[in-house]
Amino acid sequence: MKHLLLIAHGSRRQQSNDEVRDLTQQLTAAAQGHFDQVSCAFLELSAPSIPEGIDSAARQGAHSIIVLPYFLAAGQHVGTEIPKIIASAHQRHPQVTITLLPHLGASKAMPSLLLSIAEDMGYR
Amino acid sequence: MKHLLLIAHGSRRQQSNDEVRDLTQQLTAAAQGHFDQVSCAFLELSAPSIPEGIDSAARQGAHSIIVLPYFLAAGQHVGTEIPKIIASAHQRHPQVTITLLPHLGASKAMPSLLLSIAEDMGYR
Repeated sequence: MKHLLLIAHGSRRQQSNDEVRDLTQQLTAAAQGHFDQVSCAFLELSAPSIPEGIDSAARQGAHSIIVLPYFLAAGQHVGTEIPKIIASAHQRHPQVTITLLPHLGASKAMPSLLLSIAEDMGYR
Repeated sequence: MKHLLLIAHGSRRQQSNDEVRDLTQQLTAAAQGHFDQVSCAFLELSAPSIPEGIDSAARQGAHSIIVLPYFLAAGQHVGTEIPKIIASAHQRHPQVTITLLPHLGASKAMPSLLLSIAEDMGYR
């Protein structure tokens, strides 16, 4: 079973966390046929945490967990903290393949997405 | 002249600001034929500021400035601070049309972009 785990920073503002949960719902619909399950987890300030998200996916029978950082910048979180969390999850779940994808901000499709926002509003 | 202004939060970490500048370069290439000029500005911690970015675009002859918030969450910055900055820029440049687009995180194309990141890495 293939599990896509969207990980976000987490915010004191509950609405921001809910935006991530809403996005995860949309992602679940878009991922049908590609991933068996989709969920989200937060680095801090909201639940579930990233270890909890991974443990839960493993408990539900995921053999492969693809972790996608919903972060714009390659800072301390993306470069150091998250890889450490993933390394530690590897040790807890040696039977599961856990793959950390590049963060959102590094996507080569970002310029097109930004232009599409302008286009949708009638500018382009 | 149509100007696309990408606005980001800005970071103490210079590399993060440079990531935004690099993205602006890519956006400039992608926007050819749609926008005459593309630049970036920062809410805080880096230069130019958003008012400086708008003033500079206006000085260079922009008649329309399309402002695109490179933010994931609709927090205080996106919901309150940035609209105030734009309103104040309107007053300084009554001859220029300044349009604030929805923030990146609200894009309906986001789920597809996230899936494309997984796809590019061979997952999907």
